[in-house]
Amino acid sequence: MSVVALWIEYDGSAYVGWQRQPNGVSIQMQIEDALSVVIGQPVALQSSGRTDAGVHARCMVAHFKADILLPMSAYVHGVNRLLPRDIAVREARLVSDQFHARFSAERKWYRYSIYHSPIRSPLREHFNWHIKRPLDIYLMRQAAQLFVGEHDFSAFRASGCSAKTTVRRIDSIDIHEEGEQLHIDVRGSGFLRHMVRMLVGTLVQIGEGKRPSDDITRLLLKGPCGEARYTAPAHGLCLMEVEYPASLTEAQDLPD
Amino acid sequence: MSVVALWIEYDGSAYVGWQRQPNGVSIQMQIEDALSVVIGQPVALQSSGRTDAGVHARCMVAHFKADILLPMSAYVHGVNRLLPRDIAVREARLVSDQFHARFSAERKWYRYSIYHSPIRSPLREHFNWHIKRPLDIYLMRQAAQLFVGEHDFSAFRASGCSAKTTVRRIDSIDIHEEGEQLHIDVRGSGFLRHMVRMLVGTLVQIGEGKRPSDDITRLLLKGPCGEARYTAPAHGLCLMEVEYPASLTEAQDLPD
Repeated sequence: MSVVALWIEYDGSAYVGWQRQPNGVSIQMQIEDALSVVIGQPVALQSSGRTDAGVHARCMVAHFKADILLPMSAYVHGVNRLLPRDIAVREARLVSDQFHARFSAERKWYRYSIYHSPIRSPLREHFNWHIKRPLDIYLMRQAAQLFVGEHDFSAFRASGCSAKTTVRRIDSIDIHEEGEQLHIDVRGSGFLRHMVRMLVGTLVQIGEGKRPSDDITRLLLKGPCGEARYTAPAHGLCLMEVEYPASLTEAQDLPD
Repeated sequence: MSVVALWIEYDGSAYVGWQRQPNGVSIQMQIEDALSVVIGQPVALQSSGRTDAGVHARCMVAHFKADILLPMSAYVHGVNRLLPRDIAVREARLVSDQFHARFSAERKWYRYSIYHSPIRSPLREHFNWHIKRPLDIYLMRQAAQLFVGEHDFSAFRASGCSAKTTVRRIDSIDIHEEGEQLHIDVRGSGFLRHMVRMLVGTLVQIGEGKRPSDDITRLLLKGPCGEARYTAPAHGLCLMEVEYPASLTEAQDLPD
């Protein structure tokens, strides 16, 4: 049994999210359907995680198991021909049979994009949260550091979140400012449902002076589920990268 | 009679172009309609030029004449509230009564964006022409210089172009390459219908080795209308800036 890993890019605007759901079209469904046509039999993808409705990915990772291998280009070009324009497989690789898109993941990088200006920008509308009000970026940067480390993030998850444990490790939060464009880069071991959007929402509230920074400390010291309340909109969020041990994602020789 | 200049940004994807047309929704129509509501009477905009269906603008300039002036913020925030998300007035300014958006324009800057990769990128789909084949950027840069200067661009205009003279001056064409992202910045006195897209189409043909560079010289020395033939798609093009003499766009004091 061979394991094939896929690196996938998508504009999530039109979808109910990564995961197959009865109530609409998901990214997983689109790719599994296209892949099944190319392979000639049903295929199930395991992904590194889910993204919510409207969230984008520069690099989602998923894998599937194959009895018979096609050339890797069939999983890229063949599948892309069947996919809509807002989803593409960027790379397919035969990887170690120890690789698992979810369980092997060591770290994820999410980027949240904010367009910060009194006037909206139609060219940036699609991938940015537009914030008109003044933001104290210095204060936001300081507050962001309070999230770094291993914490119980119960206060920063959606009420529907079913994760067994709510302890996660955040490695870094970097806020880059270039003119009116803000990028908030969050790196960590994993994230609860809506967690990145709730961290960003909370930081924005702090930047607007609507919440004191030490609220973060209070919330991390055991706020109830969803207590952060202010969730940044989905369309500003993008999964940028999922990191794995190099040995597991190294390209394997094709079997004879 | 006061003259108010507007700086306008739009995502042109959904429109038949800048100019009012009987066959669909134009950007001009959307702004004139919103502005008329705010002003309380019909208003006609004069723009620096037109953009084709699907072409974007970071900074289109237009003006109108007003008997009674509202605070400039009404022309920005008031109008933006009535406009769809893909159009926004970025600035409104009371300017010299000698200002004319079209006749005072000295120079325009257009940017054409290409995503150059064997595999398409859903996140860049919207504003980039995706080119899969290899391009010789060095050759394209050299060839681009042949366009610089004052030439008869008859070969580089759409068959429907009604301009009286076909002589235009191109000041510069710069090709910026950053990884898989190409930007072709074209600056000049003015452009015929489809001209920038035909210049880009021709440069891409040269970069692909499908056309020799000296074809440009031949076409400029009087090719018939539309001879360039290869027109780059509209969605990669964006009007970036229109330059005016500083004296004409200086903000004027509001009349008493």
